[in-house]
Formats: sequence, structure tokens, C-alpha cells
Amino acid sequence: MKRIGILTSGGDAAGMNASVRAIARSAMSAGLEAYGINYGFAGLVAGDIHKLESIDMDGIISRGGTVLYSARFPEFAEEKTQLKGIEQLKKFGIDALVVIGGDGSYHGAERLTQHGFNSIGMPGTIDNDIPGTDFTVGFDTAVSVALDALDRVNDTATSHQRTFIVEVMGRGAGDIALWAGIAADADAIVIPERDYDIQAIASKIKQNRANGKDHNLVVLAEGVMSAAEFKEKLDKFGVLHTRAITLGHVQRGGSPTARDRVLASRFGDFAVKLLLEGKGGLAIGIKDNKLVASDIIDTLENHKHVTDVSLQDLNDRLRF
Amino acid sequence: MKRIGILTSGGDAAGMNASVRAIARSAMSAGLEAYGINYGFAGLVAGDIHKLESIDMDGIISRGGTVLYSARFPEFAEEKTQLKGIEQLKKFGIDALVVIGGDGSYHGAERLTQHGFNSIGMPGTIDNDIPGTDFTVGFDTAVSVALDALDRVNDTATSHQRTFIVEVMGRGAGDIALWAGIAADADAIVIPERDYDIQAIASKIKQNRANGKDHNLVVLAEGVMSAAEFKEKLDKFGVLHTRAITLGHVQRGGSPTARDRVLASRFGDFAVKLLLEGKGGLAIGIKDNKLVASDIIDTLENHKHVTDVSLQDLNDRLRF
Amino acid sequence: MKRIGILTSGGDAAGMNASVRAIARSAMSAGLEAYGINYGFAGLVAGDIHKLESIDMDGIISRGGTVLYSARFPEFAEEKTQLKGIEQLKKFGIDALVVIGGDGSYHGAERLTQHGFNSIGMPGTIDNDIPGTDFTVGFDTAVSVALDALDRVNDTATSHQRTFIVEVMGRGAGDIALWAGIAADADAIVIPERDYDIQAIASKIKQNRANGKDHNLVVLAEGVMSAAEFKEKLDKFGVLHTRAITLGHVQRGGSPTARDRVLASRFGDFAVKLLLEGKGGLAIGIKDNKLVASDIIDTLENHKHVTDVSLQDLNDRLRF
Amino acid sequence: MKRIGILTSGGDAAGMNASVRAIARSAMSAGLEAYGINYGFAGLVAGDIHKLESIDMDGIISRGGTVLYSARFPEFAEEKTQLKGIEQLKKFGIDALVVIGGDGSYHGAERLTQHGFNSIGMPGTIDNDIPGTDFTVGFDTAVSVALDALDRVNDTATSHQRTFIVEVMGRGAGDIALWAGIAADADAIVIPERDYDIQAIASKIKQNRANGKDHNLVVLAEGVMSAAEFKEKLDKFGVLHTRAITLGHVQRGGSPTARDRVLASRFGDFAVKLLLEGKGGLAIGIKDNKLVASDIIDTLENHKHVTDVSLQDLNDRLRF
Repeated sequence: MKRIGILTSGGDAAGMNASVRAIARSAMSAGLEAYGINYGFAGLVAGDIHKLESIDMDGIISRGGTVLYSARFPEFAEEKTQLKGIEQLKKFGIDALVVIGGDGSYHGAERLTQHGFNSIGMPGTIDNDIPGTDFTVGFDTAVSVALDALDRVNDTATSHQRTFIVEVMGRGAGDIALWAGIAADADAIVIPERDYDIQAIASKIKQNRANGKDHNLVVLAEGVMSAAEFKEKLDKFGVLHTRAITLGHVQRGGSPTARDRVLASRFGDFAVKLLLEGKGGLAIGIKDNKLVASDIIDTLENHKHVTDVSLQDLNDRLRF
Repeated sequence: MKRIGILTSGGDAAGMNASVRAIARSAMSAGLEAYGINYGFAGLVAGDIHKLESIDMDGIISRGGTVLYSARFPEFAEEKTQLKGIEQLKKFGIDALVVIGGDGSYHGAERLTQHGFNSIGMPGTIDNDIPGTDFTVGFDTAVSVALDALDRVNDTATSHQRTFIVEVMGRGAGDIALWAGIAADADAIVIPERDYDIQAIASKIKQNRANGKDHNLVVLAEGVMSAAEFKEKLDKFGVLHTRAITLGHVQRGGSPTARDRVLASRFGDFAVKLLLEGKGGLAIGIKDNKLVASDIIDTLENHKHVTDVSLQDLNDRLRF
Repeated sequence: MKRIGILTSGGDAAGMNASVRAIARSAMSAGLEAYGINYGFAGLVAGDIHKLESIDMDGIISRGGTVLYSARFPEFAEEKTQLKGIEQLKKFGIDALVVIGGDGSYHGAERLTQHGFNSIGMPGTIDNDIPGTDFTVGFDTAVSVALDALDRVNDTATSHQRTFIVEVMGRGAGDIALWAGIAADADAIVIPERDYDIQAIASKIKQNRANGKDHNLVVLAEGVMSAAEFKEKLDKFGVLHTRAITLGHVQRGGSPTARDRVLASRFGDFAVKLLLEGKGGLAIGIKDNKLVASDIIDTLENHKHVTDVSLQDLNDRLRF
Repeated sequence: MKRIGILTSGGDAAGMNASVRAIARSAMSAGLEAYGINYGFAGLVAGDIHKLESIDMDGIISRGGTVLYSARFPEFAEEKTQLKGIEQLKKFGIDALVVIGGDGSYHGAERLTQHGFNSIGMPGTIDNDIPGTDFTVGFDTAVSVALDALDRVNDTATSHQRTFIVEVMGRGAGDIALWAGIAADADAIVIPERDYDIQAIASKIKQNRANGKDHNLVVLAEGVMSAAEFKEKLDKFGVLHTRAITLGHVQRGGSPTARDRVLASRFGDFAVKLLLEGKGGLAIGIKDNKLVASDIIDTLENHKHVTDVSLQDLNDRLRF
């Protein structure tokens, strides 16, 4: 093991730079070289690859986005493109690859592993929807950004006696909605993992208004429907003064939280440790507060992310 | 002069609480009493009025929204409703009224003044679109919140080589777009005060991409059109990888910036000073960094806010 | 079980309000009443106790400090004072008490339990130094505030080629220093749990400068020594351009992070659940990402917080 | 006029990068070339000078510190060193120089002008203490960072019934203390421009406590004395529960506020406009909200910054 390649792929997430830095620095610390691959799998196939120096990693831990860029590259689903990628890795003398990203990125790492090239998947996505880990890098920051917006919306809602429906990101997962919703004192949290009862939500809001709480907040995961659609439903059930907001892409970027930076640092260092032990073909994660690694093929094919839906029950008890 | 009434009206803006506090504290400091009127003109007519104590003003300077609440109340356009409001003010022994808000709120203050009740309009709106002042309370915070989002969007745009069109608030005025756009290094700022040349903007973005700058940002004032509409236009002119974002209500709330708090403090204190001097029927403002007061009727009927469109030229020079 | 008492005690921590709210709301949700006790154990003995309504809990989740206030009260070490406290609790018909705070607060809860009054300790301190839990409420916010300052200091250090020694809080524990230090790309982290080698740190900084990295950051836990003292030592070993900063009390307050709010919500709800099951005399915590409760007497007398010092090794690998 | 040189000097301030960018971009936009000089006057003399490209300016508007670095260089007080600097400028074909910084930096620009080299001083300092301008770039950000800390301290003060004395920066000027103090609802603001009455302040705090306001905040400008010294004085006058905090260097760095970014953009563009008109030897500023330029020699020798001390009276009225 001499050289480790690193790429970021899929939607960008805060903490991707912290991840790159951790892998590169930990590798250098162990006497290895680290190579950055630009534009994800597209850059891999194109050979857009360069050596990373320690000084290049200086200061990037605090920056959003990814210094290695990211790009969509559906062509990587084809075997011949995958083999082209391996060719490039070999050309640069790279012995192992760490892929930082979400679901799709993991599949790329899985394919390379199946073709015999030692690859590791490291979770970097705001959605927290990766199997094999309780938390992904980028999730804490996304929740924090969403909460910031929700706190502001609460100010307006309070002043104007309104009911805001705020749609947060998360793709098919309700994790961002649950965490941000609890933290923002939401009256209801609607997630794709569970059916919602529009009538019950409408009744609760009307009840709240009858009890003198005339501002209300519904946090809606994008995986359920759009805020505009949900607003329409609530309107039909007689909820007044509703407003729909979609937070959108602002949840992706920004300087990562301490927690995301530390998690990225631990993941990156752990990936290097595993590679040094001769291991590969793994998905990295944190479970029950411990670093874990699972077979990447098995993880992707036989497991899926399980959202902690009990948080919705918790919120119902706190906002009965 | 014994008692000053205070109300907030129209869309909420950060710094409304700082404004209420400044009027109330400055009044008390001069030996007067301050009365808070809840829910704007609606509460005025309904007599939802209470005495404010100094201790109630403690800590509210840092909070978004308005502790006096706000409400739409189109009925106040009718004369008999206005007279009902004056009746209530007299019932509570209130000698003068300060109205914090935007355009519509000023009209309410103007009407009361025309009916002989001494009223002062104090600018509290994120849009910065009030005649008689260079800056309104809430504008600096709104710009700051918009900028925060734009900085984040820039992270994502950079990582993904995208062109983001971000729609910011401002009603008919381009002020938020201009300030936030310059501060965010926008490639183009589109405002309602000036025609835009979609072809020129598209060319510039394509030129940028040809020159190696493959992330681009267009900041669009809501007074022009929606981000989705603008994106469609850009797409037609062959700009690739466009994404539309609408920042929305999150720009309203949140803890006010230092500048908005200080401006609100100066305005509130100035309003009390004017009332103590026996003046009224005024619109308060800051012009060329000096506190000014102009006749509220004349101001509303004969003047309008002038956006500093030279900022767009400035941006063009900085992003040629 | 009809009525639950709640108090906050010791140094304030972000998330104390979120904790109070969670206990109160969860209790009400189960048909119980919640009573707030002002000024910690001092207010308990003085009978400064009042019923909490759900509406009072509205919006406090986002606010720093504690709405129940806190106070030092060394007199509570005496048995007769403790018995006086129990008398007051009985007078108000309170059946169980939840104490939110740090080490000292836990001892109060332990004493009441020993006298037969069912009490639960809930971790609320920035220092993360409570036995029986991996994380305390307030820690994540304190780290986040410290990191914000460190990011700013890095800007200045980079511009001026300086070495900053920044002292962070944590009492006898190095947790804040470790988390904030890793997240801030610190060149060295100095904690009370391990000896430090001043010569090695000085050499590393001088080496960095020789290699072209002429800004350096040492994060120092207050439990080791003051920043000024450490600076003096570094100066003696020939490190140039050193500056000492003590972050101080600003780390305590502020709006809690999402993570602290969610943790507080889970802890509060869990405390009520335990009390409803007839359990008491417990210290609440989170271990390996699971809610746990341990005997409060045993926890305090036989266990102590174990800082994860392996984080220092991690940092050394990332900043070799 | 072909080439403009740019350097940053003195203590770093947020918005220095925005200033560099504005000068460089505006120059390029007018067909000129921009050259960056590293490490202030030290780098000037050493010839550490390089051409700036538009792409290098991308994204730096949002970053604290200065990409051109800064350094102390007392040697520049000597004439022969100044002449050495001019030699370097000529060697690189630079026709005019813009110096971004505070008082000391202006003196450097003045000297070069006196030796016949066209130089412009542009205000970049957190202290707001430059003659010839109402506001400096970096001031708004410093106030905003200080306020953020003060808001947090207020949380703790409220919870613990304490009196905090918080020392803010500003060198000999009280501007940061005044703005941050008003915005933070300070009970007293102590500035070097005016004598303070320790007995009156102590009485007011004791009076506050008697009236039920048992948390108090004194904002102290560093130009008066240290927080520790002031605390000692207050203690002697019988004020209880005092705590001293020094905010320190954290006020310097961080991402600049929108206002600082826009101000820097306007200043930089204005400097280029003046140079293009063949003018030089000027100090740039904003007065009464209008861009102004004054003779740099006259400005430095015959004028000094005048703090708006009426803000202290305003605060006294709001916190009577």
C-alpha cells in the first residue's frame, strides 16, 4: 500500500472537505501518499488526478462544498467505464480508493471492489440515508441550517399568528425533518416512513388556536410531498393563515458543524487504518457511537437505512 | 404629552422589538408612559392596549418578530374604523402614536394625523422601500440572512459547476438583491428598477464557463419575476445546469443585526424627542447618516423610495 | 405520581431550557403536573416554586440560559437544609424531582434520594464531565461556540503568521478542547487527562514554520493552566509571535444547537418515563447512543467521567 | 496608468479581502492590471509582489483575514526603506498603490506620496478610528462579533443574577463599545472619549438590583482600562457578583458582514476611479453616506477620528 485515491461524489454535503483532509493527512502520517480525484467518477475515468500535499489540506476543514468537486456521471453504471476507471487508478499507481458520498457513490465503490479494486465507501450526504451507519457526515450541519431557518420562521409565525409548513430535504428519509422538527418545537412532523393523518394534524392546529397558541409549525420531509401540496390539504381541512416554504439547496452548503468535522476526521482516519490492515471492500460507519466497517456489497444489497421513527412519537409527547 | 402609544403593523421585520423598546424606554426616561397596542391597527380598534413597563422591554432587543404582534387589517382604510381607533386612543388617555412598519402602516399613521391625532411613522420593513429614509429597520438583517444563504449556495455551486438563480425578497424594490448580490459575488443582479437583458446575462455565464469559472450566481429580486420563470428563460438561451431557489420568509425573522438594533434605537429615541417638542404627523428616517423627519402626508403622497441603482453598475464592474 | 418538580443548578448551559420544557411537556402529556423551582436548591429551600403551563414552555427551546434561574448554594451540603427542601416539596405536593445540572447538582439530587425523596439527575453542563453519560446537554453548543471563535482566530493567525494559544473551558475535563481542537485543525491540543511535552509542541511549531506553515494554533483546556502561562512556556522554548486568548464565559450561553435540543428532549422525556414506572434515585445518560439510567448514588460514588483521550492521538495523526 | 499595486497592512480586519478583490476587479474592468504585495510594507520592500488574476479573487469576498497577509514593519518609518519600496514598485512597473489598513498603514501611504509615488489609503480596521471617514471596513463585523458574544453573556447573566464587565476592542476609540453596547442593552458603556463616574455606575447597578433587574452588563472599551481593573473598582463600590471578560482577538476575524463587503466594494471601486482620473495622495472614506476623498497628508496631520459620543447619551436614555 503506497497510494490512496480520494474522490467525492453525488450531492455535496458539508464536511466533505473535512473528510478529504482526514484521509489525506492520516495517510501521509502513515507514510502513504494521497491522490485527489476531481469531479467524482467522471474525473476518475478522465484521469483528472493529482497528488495532495499536507499544506493543501490547511484550512479546508472549515469550508463547505468539496475542493475535489463533484459531478453526476450515470455512465459509471456501465462495466467498461468502471474498468476504464481502474485503468486510470493503476496508471497513477493508486492502490486503494476512498469514495465519499451517498448511496450512488457507494454503488460505484462497490462495483470497483467487485472488479477487484480495493475501495471503501465513506458516508458523506446530508440525507443520513446510508445503510451501515447511524449518522452520515453532513447531516448534523444540514439539520443545523434547517433549524436556523425554522427558528426564524417561528419569529414570523408568532408575530402573525400563522401556520407555516416548511419542507426540508432528506430524499426518501425523514431524518432531517425529525431532528430539525423536534429542535424547532414543531407542532407536527411529517415523514415518508410513516403515514400521516391530515385530519388529526388539522384538528391539533385548530385546537392549538382555540387554546391561544395561534402560531403553528409543520415540518415536512421532501420525501412525502411538496410544502405547497401539503398546504393545500391543510387549507381544505379549514386551517387558516397557512404559508408554505421550501428550504431547498441552502441546506447543503456552509461551514460544517464541529460534530460533522469530528465525525469526518474519525471516519477518514479509520478508513486509512483499515486499508493499512489490508482490508477493503468496506462501508464505514458509526454505530452506537463506535466506528464500524461492514462489507460494502452485503451492506448495499441486503441492508437499508432505518430512520429512528420513535422520534416522531417523542415529538408528539412534547407537543401533545 | 403624557402617554405614547406604540404599534407594529404589516409584515414583521427584525428590529421591530428594538424599535418598540427604544420608544418605550426613551418615553419613560422623559417621564412619559408608554402603551403597547397589540395586533397593529386591528388591536387599536379593538382596544387591545396595555401599559408597558421598563422590565418588559428587557432582552427583547435581541429577538426577531414583534412582541406587539402584527396583523392585516384592510378595514382600516375606512374612515369610521379610523375614528374608532382614535376613540380607543383617547379612552386610554394616549396623546400620540408611533406606528412601526412599512408602506401600509404609514398610511394608517397618515390617516390618523389627518383626523387630528398626532402620529409618527417609523420605518420597520425588510424591503427598504419607504420614502423619507435611506434605510429601514430590518433591511440590514434581511440582507444578512440572504447573504448567509447565498454564501452556502456558492459552496454548492462551486462543487457542482452549477448556475444558481436565487430569488430574494424586496417587494417592488431591488435593494435586498443589490446589497446581498454584491456581497455574494453575484455574476448578475436583476432588479425591478431596471430592464434586464437576458441574452447578455446568458452570454456572460457562458463566457464565464469558457474561461474556467463554471459556477455562477444570479440574484433576482422578487419584484421582477420568480426564480423558476427566470431559470426557464436562461435555459432557453442555452445556459446549462441551472437551479432555481426562492429564499422566502426566512429573510424576515431572526435576531436583528447590530446595525438594525442601533438604527431602531436612534429612531425610537428621535420619535420621542419630536413628540416632546410638540411635533407630530411626521415620517422618521435617516438620510445621509443623519436623523430626519418629514411631513408624513407630503412624504407619502409626493415622494417615493429611490433605490440606489448605481450599485448594479458597481457590481457589473466587479463582475465584468 | 401527580406532580414533578424541576430545577436547574450550577453553571448555566445551553439546552437547560430545552430540558425543562421536555420534562414539563412530557409530564403534562402523561397527565401529570410540572412545577418549576427557581434559583436551584436555594429556591427549593425558600419555596420559590410555581406551576408550569404548556404555553410557558413555548419558544424556550431556542433560548440560552435557564428560565428557572440558577444559583450557588453551598448551604445545601447540610442535612438540615436538605430536609427543609424536602419539606417544601411536600408542601407543594410534589412527588418527584428532576435536577438539571452538573456534578454539584447531582450531589444535591443524591442527598434528597438518600433522605427518601425520589430524585433524578439530568446532565446539563458544558463540561461533559458527568459520570454515567457519554454526552451532557450543553456540551455540543459549547464546542460549537468555541469552534466559531477558533475559526475566527485562524483567520487572524493566517494573516499574521502567528501562533495562538486559545484556552477553552471544561473544568477538569479536556472534552471541549479535544472536540473544538480537532474541528479547528489545531496543531496541538493540551488536556488535563494527559501530560504534555512543551518541548515537543515547540519543536513542532518551529518545524511547521520551517515548512512554510507560519500560523499555528494550540487549543488548551482550562484544567491544565491558563493561556498566559502556557504562552510564557512556549516563549521560553523559542516560539515566536505567540498570542494568548481566553474564551471565557461566552462559551456558556447562546441558542442551543439542534443536537443539544434533541438530546435534552430525549433526556427529559426519558426522566418522566422512569418516574411513571415508579423508578427514581437515578442518573440519566446516553451511552453508545442509547438512553440509560444508573443508580445516582452508585454513579456518583463509584464512577467518574472518562474523556476519550484517543481523540488526542487522532489529532496528532491529522496534524503530524 | 497601467498597473495598480495593492497591500494590506496593520491588524487584520474582516473585509480586507473584499477590499483587495474590489480594487483588483475594478482595475481589471477598466483595462488595468492589479498586483498583490504580500506581507504589507515588509513585502513591498522585499519585492514579494505578484500579478492578480480575476479568478484568484473568486470567493475571497466571504473570507476573513487577508490573502495578501499582513506584517508589522516598523522599519518603514525610515526614509531609505521607503525609497527601497518605491524602487520595487517601479521595478514591477506599478504606477499607483492602494494601501488597505489603519492608522499606521495610512502613514506609510502618506510617506510614499510625499516621495512622489501616487498612493491611496483605504480604511481597513476594526477600530473605526481613521480620520476622513465615518466608517471603516471591518468595524461592522467586529461590532457584530462582539454583539454575538454579548448576547450570549446576557443569557448567562440573566440565569445567574450577575454583573458582567465585558471589555471590547477599539484601541483608543470607543466606537465598538458604543455600537455593541447599545445593541446589547448594556446598563453602562464606558469609553475613552469621556470620563466615567464609577460611583454613578455602581449606584445604577445596585438600583437595578433593588428594582428586580438582577443581571447587569457593562461594556468597556479597551482604551479605558482592562475588564479586570474595572471589576475591581466596581467591587470596591459594593457591586456584587461581578465577572470580568475580555473578548480579545476573536473580534478581528470571521466572514465579513454584508455591510462591510458592500462598503469595501464601493471603496475599492472608488479608489480605482480616482486613480484613473489621475488623482492620488488621497485618503478614501464615506461621510454622510457619500464616498469622499481627502488629501492624505492633510487628513493625517490635521484631522482625527471623532467618535459619536452622543450614542452614550442615547444609551443612557434607553437604560436610565
